[in-house]
Amino acid sequence: MATIIVPENVSIHEDAENLQKACKGYIVCSLNIDLLIRWGTDEKAIINILGHRNAIQRKQIRQAYEELYQEDLIKRLESELSGDFEKAVYRWILDPFDRDAVLANVATKKVETEFPVIIELSCIYSPEELLAVRRAYQSRYKRSLEEDVAAHTTGDLRKALTTYRYDGPEINERLAKFEADILHEAIKDKIFNHEEVIRILTTRSKAQLKSSFNRYRDEHGTSITKKLLKDESNVLQKVLHAVIRCIDDPKKYYEKVLRNAIKRSGTDEDALTRVIVTRAEKDLKDLKKLYYEKNSVTLDHAVSKEIAGDYKKFLLTLLGKED
Amino acid sequence: MATIIVPENVSIHEDAENLQKACKGYIVCSLNIDLLIRWGTDEKAIINILGHRNAIQRKQIRQAYEELYQEDLIKRLESELSGDFEKAVYRWILDPFDRDAVLANVATKKVETEFPVIIELSCIYSPEELLAVRRAYQSRYKRSLEEDVAAHTTGDLRKALTTYRYDGPEINERLAKFEADILHEAIKDKIFNHEEVIRILTTRSKAQLKSSFNRYRDEHGTSITKKLLKDESNVLQKVLHAVIRCIDDPKKYYEKVLRNAIKRSGTDEDALTRVIVTRAEKDLKDLKKLYYEKNSVTLDHAVSKEIAGDYKKFLLTLLGKED
Repeated sequence: MATIIVPENVSIHEDAENLQKACKGYIVCSLNIDLLIRWGTDEKAIINILGHRNAIQRKQIRQAYEELYQEDLIKRLESELSGDFEKAVYRWILDPFDRDAVLANVATKKVETEFPVIIELSCIYSPEELLAVRRAYQSRYKRSLEEDVAAHTTGDLRKALTTYRYDGPEINERLAKFEADILHEAIKDKIFNHEEVIRILTTRSKAQLKSSFNRYRDEHGTSITKKLLKDESNVLQKVLHAVIRCIDDPKKYYEKVLRNAIKRSGTDEDALTRVIVTRAEKDLKDLKKLYYEKNSVTLDHAVSKEIAGDYKKFLLTLLGKED
Repeated sequence: MATIIVPENVSIHEDAENLQKACKGYIVCSLNIDLLIRWGTDEKAIINILGHRNAIQRKQIRQAYEELYQEDLIKRLESELSGDFEKAVYRWILDPFDRDAVLANVATKKVETEFPVIIELSCIYSPEELLAVRRAYQSRYKRSLEEDVAAHTTGDLRKALTTYRYDGPEINERLAKFEADILHEAIKDKIFNHEEVIRILTTRSKAQLKSSFNRYRDEHGTSITKKLLKDESNVLQKVLHAVIRCIDDPKKYYEKVLRNAIKRSGTDEDALTRVIVTRAEKDLKDLKKLYYEKNSVTLDHAVSKEIAGDYKKFLLTLLGKED
């Protein structure tokens, strides 16, 4: 379930006007005469408006703003805001698939650390959603996502980051057992560049893979992710581990990303922003619940202790904090 | 341009009825009494109807037949016809993308010889058309096309048969020069499993690759296909050669497939049927023209000397022969 709180009556036109005032940074103070008082960008107003609008409304606001002021709202916000707050607002205001394309493009340039962004797309998103992201990517960058991934990677890593799955519910039990054994042999012998392992993880449907993971657990008494965790040392292993975790249980995976982002010394703002922005209209409520179960502290509380200023106010708004 | 001749007034309902009569294989002969004379399937009628209907009409005929007789026309035809004729009619009557899915599925099972089918899809079809084939494949086989290709191949061959291209017209000239040099080095040193060569050929857009091929020709005085041809020995090289030819000039490529299919001792009926059936509603007229230029004999004449019977009648009908 989503976390953002959208009021019942929203006037797109007023939103656009108020955003322009917030960007202009002055208010008209009517005493005996009209007094124009400039006090800089009104971040609070920006958070109050955009943080309480869904994707369709945000798109309509961008369009209304363009019509009213012949100016791109996104560009205007970029010039008014800065730092992690700017980044978060920018990611939030984009169309969801376009936002994913931007996130993916950034990730292709530093795959060794940012590979989770690409794996989330290929292993958590449905093939239809992935297709929409690929289309947004092509329209924005005039290249294919896979072309850019391939240009920045080599060998097994390149293979592991490219997937083609069928989306259906059918399961072949015999195949699940057979491939669970292949996975087990590879993990046992620590052969992670095993071509068959990469083939299985990048081409089998999620339903089929889950069935293989279940077989693995039933036959070997431990989950495949637990077993893998112990041996994680190079990038390829980390990638395969993330692939398995994303397919096995996306919510558990995201909770862990949030936990690591917060617990890391220095905070991983990019990861924190990414999960909150991309999940706020999907399942962030479930992630909050899971976070509390695993950490005995609410995600809102953890976020609010970890970051500050407008960035904090904005993320808390997306997390569903009442004003 | 297409070759098939479609009459102006077509009655789908009558077509379905006449096909049923043709399959039943009898005529009612009204003399003084009605005489039912059984003489077997009327192949000529089947050719005359289906060979002169476009894809939309064929689909409507299948639907009308199903409604009228609660029977699947395709299954009925399969049980009535046989051999290369049956195969050709079966491929022809299917929806085009569904037909491609069937052809691709057959090819995945003997990739070492049938790889051209998969390369035609990935290097001649537009990304949107390829997507439609992939969808038809998933809906028919409950697996992804790439999953099946991966399950039947290994290593570089697996990589070479999986593509992800952007479809746009943009060309980066510097990149074209840079990658033309990579291709040249690899061909010069006969290193065909060169990872970068496979990456370039499987991910760059057609426009970008053509630009690289042009640079290759300008700088090295010979076309990349000519140079490659001399060294073709293993399957991977053959695959890469076909990839380059399909991107460089699809019509020249198809003409050569037709020529080889006919000139081979014993005729390659599958390839002959495939090109005629898949191109009859697209560019078979151009292929015929090119065939004549290259062979000084018409394609119709060559086909008619090479094969016989109903199979020959059917292919000649698709080639645009007047009755």
